Amino acid sequence: MEEYHPGLDGVIATETEVSYLDLEAESIVIRGYDLIELAERVSYLDVGYLLWHRELPTPQQHRQLATELIEAQSVPEAIVQIFRHLGPAVHLMDALRTGISALAASDPDVARAENVDRDRQLLSLWAKMPTLVAQSYRIKANLPLLAERVDLDYAANFLWQITGREPTALASEIFDKLLTLYSEHEMPNSTFCARVIASTLADPYAAMTGAVASLKGPLHGGANEEVMHMLEKVGRPEAMAAYLKARLQAKDRIMGFGHRVYMHRPDPRAVMMKTLLARLVEEKGGSDLLAMCQIGEDVMRQEKGLFANLDYYAAPVYHLLGIPTELFTPIFFAARTAGLCAHIREQYANNRLYRPRVRYLGPRGLRMESGSGSI
Amino acid sequence: MEEYHPGLDGVIATETEVSYLDLEAESIVIRGYDLIELAERVSYLDVGYLLWHRELPTPQQHRQLATELIEAQSVPEAIVQIFRHLGPAVHLMDALRTGISALAASDPDVARAENVDRDRQLLSLWAKMPTLVAQSYRIKANLPLLAERVDLDYAANFLWQITGREPTALASEIFDKLLTLYSEHEMPNSTFCARVIASTLADPYAAMTGAVASLKGPLHGGANEEVMHMLEKVGRPEAMAAYLKARLQAKDRIMGFGHRVYMHRPDPRAVMMKTLLARLVEEKGGSDLLAMCQIGEDVMRQEKGLFANLDYYAAPVYHLLGIPTELFTPIFFAARTAGLCAHIREQYANNRLYRPRVRYLGPRGLRMESGSGSI
Repeated sequence: MEEYHPGLDGVIATETEVSYLDLEAESIVIRGYDLIELAERVSYLDVGYLLWHRELPTPQQHRQLATELIEAQSVPEAIVQIFRHLGPAVHLMDALRTGISALAASDPDVARAENVDRDRQLLSLWAKMPTLVAQSYRIKANLPLLAERVDLDYAANFLWQITGREPTALASEIFDKLLTLYSEHEMPNSTFCARVIASTLADPYAAMTGAVASLKGPLHGGANEEVMHMLEKVGRPEAMAAYLKARLQAKDRIMGFGHRVYMHRPDPRAVMMKTLLARLVEEKGGSDLLAMCQIGEDVMRQEKGLFANLDYYAAPVYHLLGIPTELFTPIFFAARTAGLCAHIREQYANNRLYRPRVRYLGPRGLRMESGSGSI
Repeated sequence: MEEYHPGLDGVIATETEVSYLDLEAESIVIRGYDLIELAERVSYLDVGYLLWHRELPTPQQHRQLATELIEAQSVPEAIVQIFRHLGPAVHLMDALRTGISALAASDPDVARAENVDRDRQLLSLWAKMPTLVAQSYRIKANLPLLAERVDLDYAANFLWQITGREPTALASEIFDKLLTLYSEHEMPNSTFCARVIASTLADPYAAMTGAVASLKGPLHGGANEEVMHMLEKVGRPEAMAAYLKARLQAKDRIMGFGHRVYMHRPDPRAVMMKTLLARLVEEKGGSDLLAMCQIGEDVMRQEKGLFANLDYYAAPVYHLLGIPTELFTPIFFAARTAGLCAHIREQYANNRLYRPRVRYLGPRGLRMESGSGSI
């Protein structure tokens, strides 16, 4: 039997035309474009359109997509009721997972074996993601639900539905870029999980439910919340270096540093997110937060040779945007839905069931003693 | 870059001591024992204990496990309410997925970062699976919920909770063996999916939710329901050969035949399931069903060189046990929970995040025209 690579490290698990981490060129390639250039120059919806259609939209195509997302964004009343039954202790990623899973029950196409419009199902899921995120949060927090603001753009409406406050132009622009930076990233665990499930020809609700289950994990999307908890615990720049060194000495894992693929290179998204943080600090204050992050970055590079990843600088950006920490991972997932749609469509279009083998290390040839067992 | 195997065909994706498909010895090895010998000689709970503890239980250990499963089997009232909100059109695999996902909200340990008893969570999920399956079905069918019968053994109580009828000794024994045959099978898509999710260190609710999402797929667990629909459509043995030949001519996929790993060998579980069907027919009638299956098996072997798989003979067995067709896949999942617990525990104990790479076939180096995009 062939070599075994734990975690499928370095193993090619699919062919794709969606995206690629080009480590040599230090570029995240999205349908041929550089992600950072996209984040600098176009909006999250443009990138979503590009992921879906393989080309950037005209202004008219952009407006049409925005309209389609607005028209499909509301969720059935049953979903709101289900969120209420989850109670105030629920983790919001568990609420999001349950809500996505439950949406299947209100889609009459789920029961049909043939001629199902998977694209409609995927677009509907993408459209509903901000609603699911905002409503599960507001129900948990015992806040009134807010109607969508169709006069606002995608990012501003998303922030509005969470916070109930109309964001400044800068806040809205930076949140839009944050969504773009999280929109797609080759094949992390959650995207792989979605493709594994889609390969059984299970529907998009199944594939998205699995992806959100994966993204909750502390080794994956859960990291950005841990970063914020750490920053809040440390509290001031002068305490940061000593705190990190003590935790490193205790062999604790520090969240927000290193990345399985980038290893000892900087994640270009983290570099851009840091500049967004600096811009946001100019409007909102929070220079202590920026200083603390810089010290942490320096310490981790000196002590461990590790670079800050996207989650490290996203956490303070979310925070200054007024977003509660428990929403960081659900918003990451909402943003990533754009990329997941592209991967799931690609998997359906050129499918092969994922069914790897194992290397068995257990015993063989055991025989039962006569009389063993209880039947 | 290395070779690419679509669907990870033949790729070793983990080391395991849980089970192994030994194609040369034509044996399914479960913790060292042959699955067919286990199904012949011990009960499903014994196999579940073996999967968990690496050895068969003493009678006392068997009784203790049975007690633990009974004590943990009821689900919170919120889950029943959530099932009601899913409405009468829900697919029962979607209901099961939503119920498992929602259970996380009532577990106070989900919010804890450390010292979480994963084993308790897994045992609780295993215990609740028959309850989730039976209650989601009875709510959908507008039937009253039934209290568990602690005087019955695991398999008989499971059948009772679904049908509301106390099964005969033979029905109970055959259902127990069916559960054993489905209990564990190396690393099919759903088990792989559970391990992929667990590798992010997400909790057992997340891993199980992903597994049930996968098992719904028509290329995976959904096949047994398709077999029953086919048998009901054909209706009588004389019509079977012509029906299959017509569908083969139309290049339709026939469910219940072939298996990605077994390819051109018989699945030993299908062989045993066929003998169980013959025994059940003696008590319940249904010799037409048995004859129809035999003709189908012969035709598919002659025409396509394909062997019947487990799902092919499980479908008529379920049917003669009085189980509605829409419950076939949920019951498969409930049985498989025993094996999934073992895999998820093993993944946590020796973890490496699954994060494979891709082969990128899309364009590179595209540049935006000035003025493109809408921001």
